[in-house]
Amino acid sequence: MTVYLVGAGPGDAELLTVRAARLVASADVIVYDRLIEPSVLELARHDAELIDVGKEPGGSNSQALINDLLVALGRRGSSVVRLKGGDPFVFGRGGEELIALRAAGVDCDVVPGVTSAFSGPLAAGIPVTHRGVAHGVTVVTGHVCDGDDDYFRRIAHPELSLVILMGVSQRSSIAGQLMRGGLSGETPVAVIESAWTIRQRVTRATLDALGALDVSPPAIIVVGPTAALALRDIMSEAAALA
Amino acid sequence: MTVYLVGAGPGDAELLTVRAARLVASADVIVYDRLIEPSVLELARHDAELIDVGKEPGGSNSQALINDLLVALGRRGSSVVRLKGGDPFVFGRGGEELIALRAAGVDCDVVPGVTSAFSGPLAAGIPVTHRGVAHGVTVVTGHVCDGDDDYFRRIAHPELSLVILMGVSQRSSIAGQLMRGGLSGETPVAVIESAWTIRQRVTRATLDALGALDVSPPAIIVVGPTAALALRDIMSEAAALA
Repeated sequence: MTVYLVGAGPGDAELLTVRAARLVASADVIVYDRLIEPSVLELARHDAELIDVGKEPGGSNSQALINDLLVALGRRGSSVVRLKGGDPFVFGRGGEELIALRAAGVDCDVVPGVTSAFSGPLAAGIPVTHRGVAHGVTVVTGHVCDGDDDYFRRIAHPELSLVILMGVSQRSSIAGQLMRGGLSGETPVAVIESAWTIRQRVTRATLDALGALDVSPPAIIVVGPTAALALRDIMSEAAALA
Repeated sequence: MTVYLVGAGPGDAELLTVRAARLVASADVIVYDRLIEPSVLELARHDAELIDVGKEPGGSNSQALINDLLVALGRRGSSVVRLKGGDPFVFGRGGEELIALRAAGVDCDVVPGVTSAFSGPLAAGIPVTHRGVAHGVTVVTGHVCDGDDDYFRRIAHPELSLVILMGVSQRSSIAGQLMRGGLSGETPVAVIESAWTIRQRVTRATLDALGALDVSPPAIIVVGPTAALALRDIMSEAAALA
């Protein structure tokens, strides 16, 4: 049988792909992360085995254990879905799991998902690119700060939107590095907590105030002029008028 | 009624989201772009009106006409799906259409899609981020070259993967700019043509050879060390062994 590395999208079960929903509905075993919404798991068969491997933010020791688990399940002959928030290959460490499965001779395939890096900002009405505002976007995680407190200075770029996943706990250091890298303290920022869930909350500020914001993980940080856009509000207004 | 700006994902109809597939299947009118696969349109109702607004690459004059069309359809009271390849807000100009609809008082909503920027490389087995190889990724379009032959020099960064959408025709200029920006001519590149379709073709080379490659649009260019990864081949080998 096959181990499928499947992107679950940003939260909302309706934002799974058709293929992902089909695989989840037919799997013998589902191995899932901390950020998978219950409504997604409700798509599974009633007799499916659900295994929570919810890693704590920044935890990396457990990755080897997850790899071993996937290999063992694949060898047992089960149909396995490894469900990851967003897209499995965008900071999802899907590549590492794929390599581990391959090394063990277990058949595997990958199903891309709606990445939180772009759909999270969209949930707040922020298009990460917008004509005349930003032509491009850089996506990173806050984990790059681990042991490198200069990374964000090096990648600071006034012409690109910056989306930071898993960066809330390092937000003060990140803001300082970006300003040392040349970004103005007046640069717009937005923090989207729990995008696409009923707990979603959007906080807007400027870069010099990012460190002091009262925000908690899971959250996505957007830095740059597009962070000041609020097209979702436009949508809501339109809905109110309709 | 509502005009839905819907991401169709990278090509394969099974990579639409569940919500997108449901909206396509129920819409009165579907307004679609050049890169939408026929298999996606086959999801529509048999009596649905299908309108091809396929813009030529680089064509921007027609955007105003598309905006007007969407406003007219929304006012007519039809249920309208505006179907865009990938994600509507990642270079999809969804923001502009949203603003035009709002200005006209037409109700609208957005459904994110699987972006071609990440799923296109994945189709070639390239994870745009991979532990120990690249911590982050920048996504841009080749259109930024229009009137600015220095943009890629400015954004060249050895620590970030670079994904370029709609850049095939400018590939020679882009490669030159990136090398002037400090990237080595030995930097790996990959070009993925028609990702997630039966016409998919992957070409790998180095940056100094990008300009001379025999490739055609639609294609995605990946520049950086992750472009040398080929996890899809690993998958295929695994499938062959299984």
